[in-house]
Amino acid sequence: MSTRRAVVHRIAVAAPDDVSGLERAIAEGRIVPGAVVAIFGKTEGNGLVNDWTRGLAARALRDLLRRHAGEAAAERVCLVMSGGTEGGLSPHLTVFEVREADEPAEPGALAIGHAHTADLAPEEVGRLAQVESVAEGVRAAMRDAGIADPADVQFVQVKCPLLTSERIAAARGRGADCATADTLKSMGLSRAAASLGIATALGEVGALEEGAIGRDFALASSRASASAGVELMGHEIVVLGRGAGWSGPLRIDHATMADALDVEPVRAALARLGLGAAGQLAPAQRERLVALLAKAEAPSDGRLRGRRTTMLTDSDLAATRHARGFVGGVLAGLVGHAELYVSGGAEHQGPDGGGPVAIIAHAP
Amino acid sequence: MSTRRAVVHRIAVAAPDDVSGLERAIAEGRIVPGAVVAIFGKTEGNGLVNDWTRGLAARALRDLLRRHAGEAAAERVCLVMSGGTEGGLSPHLTVFEVREADEPAEPGALAIGHAHTADLAPEEVGRLAQVESVAEGVRAAMRDAGIADPADVQFVQVKCPLLTSERIAAARGRGADCATADTLKSMGLSRAAASLGIATALGEVGALEEGAIGRDFALASSRASASAGVELMGHEIVVLGRGAGWSGPLRIDHATMADALDVEPVRAALARLGLGAAGQLAPAQRERLVALLAKAEAPSDGRLRGRRTTMLTDSDLAATRHARGFVGGVLAGLVGHAELYVSGGAEHQGPDGGGPVAIIAHAP
Amino acid sequence: MSTRRAVVHRIAVAAPDDVSGLERAIAEGRIVPGAVVAIFGKTEGNGLVNDWTRGLAARALRDLLRRHAGEAAAERVCLVMSGGTEGGLSPHLTVFEVREADEPAEPGALAIGHAHTADLAPEEVGRLAQVESVAEGVRAAMRDAGIADPADVQFVQVKCPLLTSERIAAARGRGADCATADTLKSMGLSRAAASLGIATALGEVGALEEGAIGRDFALASSRASASAGVELMGHEIVVLGRGAGWSGPLRIDHATMADALDVEPVRAALARLGLGAAGQLAPAQRERLVALLAKAEAPSDGRLRGRRTTMLTDSDLAATRHARGFVGGVLAGLVGHAELYVSGGAEHQGPDGGGPVAIIAHAP
Amino acid sequence: MSTRRAVVHRIAVAAPDDVSGLERAIAEGRIVPGAVVAIFGKTEGNGLVNDWTRGLAARALRDLLRRHAGEAAAERVCLVMSGGTEGGLSPHLTVFEVREADEPAEPGALAIGHAHTADLAPEEVGRLAQVESVAEGVRAAMRDAGIADPADVQFVQVKCPLLTSERIAAARGRGADCATADTLKSMGLSRAAASLGIATALGEVGALEEGAIGRDFALASSRASASAGVELMGHEIVVLGRGAGWSGPLRIDHATMADALDVEPVRAALARLGLGAAGQLAPAQRERLVALLAKAEAPSDGRLRGRRTTMLTDSDLAATRHARGFVGGVLAGLVGHAELYVSGGAEHQGPDGGGPVAIIAHAP
Repeated sequence: MSTRRAVVHRIAVAAPDDVSGLERAIAEGRIVPGAVVAIFGKTEGNGLVNDWTRGLAARALRDLLRRHAGEAAAERVCLVMSGGTEGGLSPHLTVFEVREADEPAEPGALAIGHAHTADLAPEEVGRLAQVESVAEGVRAAMRDAGIADPADVQFVQVKCPLLTSERIAAARGRGADCATADTLKSMGLSRAAASLGIATALGEVGALEEGAIGRDFALASSRASASAGVELMGHEIVVLGRGAGWSGPLRIDHATMADALDVEPVRAALARLGLGAAGQLAPAQRERLVALLAKAEAPSDGRLRGRRTTMLTDSDLAATRHARGFVGGVLAGLVGHAELYVSGGAEHQGPDGGGPVAIIAHAP
Repeated sequence: MSTRRAVVHRIAVAAPDDVSGLERAIAEGRIVPGAVVAIFGKTEGNGLVNDWTRGLAARALRDLLRRHAGEAAAERVCLVMSGGTEGGLSPHLTVFEVREADEPAEPGALAIGHAHTADLAPEEVGRLAQVESVAEGVRAAMRDAGIADPADVQFVQVKCPLLTSERIAAARGRGADCATADTLKSMGLSRAAASLGIATALGEVGALEEGAIGRDFALASSRASASAGVELMGHEIVVLGRGAGWSGPLRIDHATMADALDVEPVRAALARLGLGAAGQLAPAQRERLVALLAKAEAPSDGRLRGRRTTMLTDSDLAATRHARGFVGGVLAGLVGHAELYVSGGAEHQGPDGGGPVAIIAHAP
Repeated sequence: MSTRRAVVHRIAVAAPDDVSGLERAIAEGRIVPGAVVAIFGKTEGNGLVNDWTRGLAARALRDLLRRHAGEAAAERVCLVMSGGTEGGLSPHLTVFEVREADEPAEPGALAIGHAHTADLAPEEVGRLAQVESVAEGVRAAMRDAGIADPADVQFVQVKCPLLTSERIAAARGRGADCATADTLKSMGLSRAAASLGIATALGEVGALEEGAIGRDFALASSRASASAGVELMGHEIVVLGRGAGWSGPLRIDHATMADALDVEPVRAALARLGLGAAGQLAPAQRERLVALLAKAEAPSDGRLRGRRTTMLTDSDLAATRHARGFVGGVLAGLVGHAELYVSGGAEHQGPDGGGPVAIIAHAP
Repeated sequence: MSTRRAVVHRIAVAAPDDVSGLERAIAEGRIVPGAVVAIFGKTEGNGLVNDWTRGLAARALRDLLRRHAGEAAAERVCLVMSGGTEGGLSPHLTVFEVREADEPAEPGALAIGHAHTADLAPEEVGRLAQVESVAEGVRAAMRDAGIADPADVQFVQVKCPLLTSERIAAARGRGADCATADTLKSMGLSRAAASLGIATALGEVGALEEGAIGRDFALASSRASASAGVELMGHEIVVLGRGAGWSGPLRIDHATMADALDVEPVRAALARLGLGAAGQLAPAQRERLVALLAKAEAPSDGRLRGRRTTMLTDSDLAATRHARGFVGGVLAGLVGHAELYVSGGAEHQGPDGGGPVAIIAHAP
């Protein structure tokens, strides 16, 4: 009766390099270091170019994993650090374990799949080659999770590469041109291509033209979350969904917010997980909520339900910081706490100005 | 059958000095310039010391009122500009008119009262003399509104003075010491004393010691909103509530949020106004919502429901900006749009980390 | 013996809307309101999209000029408000008067010329049509100043238009395409085209291709200063130099900084004005310095003399704010005070990472 | 003929955690890891509460030192990371080595001394006990450097503790009260007490009253630099000066800037080191300049030479960021590059609004 069981922990941190909560959970046997496959972190930087809290957190986590699980296992763990805890959002880690279990499979139990793709050449970043590579990787991660039907995929987190001046120069040295020479823009293009790769794998879009990447936002995945990092040239992919051969009490569902105030799809997803409420979740329901993962972004015309916002014209405060704090409030108002993974930069990840939301909860 | 009728307009602005919407409403006869008693504005600055959008908006509004209602009437209008439209909050004006009406009084109709206090000496700012002056002013505004019972007051907006280097020096020249020599701190102390003055008039606190001002936040008003401005040494006071001799379809109610996520009292107040909803207000209900006025502030220990936030430790972004964006999201999630008056700096205005909310709606 | 005499005043301000210093100078007869042709202001905003201190200052100045010089004369005054007083830079106004004088012409005396251009169509902004329009305007302003030789021009300040969503839509409605649909970018393109217009009039560049605008920064004027404003579709142009028929003690010279640390050309220009010094100007020399006008900008590769700066990668603080504060320090270190007009956004205005500097001083 | 030789390296970094330059210098034998006694870093954060670049840099440096010099030696190295590279300032490390040398002592050669103090109790931070502890530590570091006469001390860098909520609570648990309950303020108080400790050891102040700490800024050291860090409860002290028994070509001198524009004392110090120049250092002189260490701070009345600055009233940008960028420009204008250690937060470190400067150069 061998199954796999997904175990998910939400752990508060006192600082980007605070791994004491994780350390304690390991010491107390609540986390099995060798079973950890991914850690998603909300760190307290600005989530932008000079956000060093992500690197500091990743360094501290990798050091800890090395001590407890060895070099090779530590390297395999997918670390996705998302900067920005505006408003009441609370810095924390979400730790994903996959354990071998000797228990019957549960229909609908949370399944986790994991894959890496080969490195891209710099000139492939933000182009169809990246879309294809990610699509292939998502399919591999689905196989790893035992998910056959794309409809059973609820959330896909992809960590994708970005271009640096050195990488662009290296491509040029071989006579190849990159999609952009602007390193900041390359982050957006890479997220865009990765998200369209997810949409491709999930059957949400058909054949694509290269010009659509980062431009035609009518094309989008309802379950994609992409973040770019300097430390890799391939992709790390985590698929969350419902698969065959999984056990345990965790369940997952998802919603798509059409704009920053579109709460009803989220309420419906909560209700499908047994967390239906008029108003905010009751404290007992809140206990059963394990993780809420969401993408947030300013609408490209700066307008929310027809009214002008200042997210895009505030030169003191980046639009992504505005968006995370606000959407954080919208979602925390529903669930009753703000230890939520709300991440910015949502190219092709849900509709313009909206975004995908995934919810993991204990079965009632 | 002579009564007074309160008329309230919410008008979007394209910039701090955009009065075209107001101009249009006057031209079309929807607003009677001479009947305007107060304008509350959400302007798009940072809401802090160097927020010049407030002064620019006030200047543009005063110029317009002078043109349409004459110098004297223009001077009487109470202008309260609150800076900060973080997240999806939308810059707008809320215009309050009091018109003579030839219609029967309606029990529970919105009543508006207005008062000015005499100028304070600089050394009285932030002290018991200010508390007393504001308490007296609130009582006068209640009489103006025909409100006898403090329980019928739903929201009190006070514009209070602050100290400048010149004012402090003038006091010193007379041998008098001010409560603080820090001009920024004087804003907080003035808001604090003004709010305790409101609490005194409403019977929410008893006899006060001077040391409690700005310190003992267990003392608070559930209906106070104070903002400090450099342009006055007295106070402008607007009381909103339910009074005798008022007609018209507008109704008002209030709620106290215990913390930034405390939505249930707000939902209850909406329901009392006939705007009950399991989730977000339906579009037809939203039409009946005229204005939502709220104060927001970071909790003094930086924790929201036990979880760490970074509002108080983010040296790039002020706590009030974090708080407005987040609470703006919480409240907009309930009502379905973000043209809300969410204002920061909430000393003694509701509980620590929470704040008062007032809602004006058309009767069903 | 009729000549013209340029009179220049530097006036500190206590706030963007503080015109009391100007008011006082008029009351005391030091400034003749009808003789004022231009006011350059350093205001204390961020100098970026949401800097409302510029509009507030311009509104206060225009109101004052109307009161003292009448509507028509007030409208003719060229107001250039430049936001951003980072570091020790001090907010102030520089007021330029042209008075009729009954005194002999002085060779080398400061000459001021002034011109307006016709309105552009939105689709002409950032294109060769704008370059040509500005070149023609600069020639007109030179004639107004009595300057025949472009070499005698020391500084040209152009206020140029920008695109708004409404203007772009209006062009589209006629089937015309604008140079950009991004309103922020249109500011840079407009400054770029205006600066190349100046360079054309001064003979610093030859025939231009449209593609060079905002791209080929090897093409530049050594004496251009351009700033974009929403309130006009034409240009206001002020030329400062040495012309025939001018009297009075004021002299002007200019320098080009090759990078942010290139102080020697500035020291040489000071010396040509009789302000030579090893080290900082002595207090008596400082008295003779009337105004220092400079443009500052981050180098496009982010490097200063080969060393990495973080101006372009600091997502919390805009590059122009970094640049103004730093170059303000460099120049204030030379002259001994920081009431300097250091303005950002220097496309085609001096070399990449450097910028033009003009100095007005009393003759020894 | 056994002497000690101080060796100082300035190494550019590409990111806070970039140790590749140091790694290369070690690999090439230019740096002897075991001889390193201190590293001062300018990192690219905001230099304020949430500047995590300091911790990231320190972690990367400590890891590298452990690999090359062993755990114990790595722990002994004094790491002082100062955040903030505003304007043209360039992130870099200054590495201090003390090597045994078989060469004759050179009079005036750079001497480096190093000391640690015992841990303070939380309630001692910001009080006379801390002043005394630091004074004792400075004397120990002077002995270590072979400096007998305080006049030979040119710069003292102290890393001092700060209070956390945990430390304050621990003190309270023992019935002891801390100097402040505000953790941010504790940084300023700790720097203040440490600086007065330096002033005491150098004979710059006499007997002190506790109330003077952080208040009476007429009391100051002309050679103090203090920065607070969370990772220690004692102090790490580095003294730079001229001592007996030192060899090698490095020399040091210092200056006190009376305000942010007071360049003449710095020019005089440069001249004493053989780097006299009428304007900026010539390229060949620049080669001989090894390090420039300075403190910068906004004047407490916000005025620079009588003119208003906006450093203290800019709620978007902290005063220390304004000050570093501006003073960085002033000093870089003198020396011709901006790879300078300009650090903010200068309580009792030089006069109000000014600060100490130390310069290390190769002898001519």
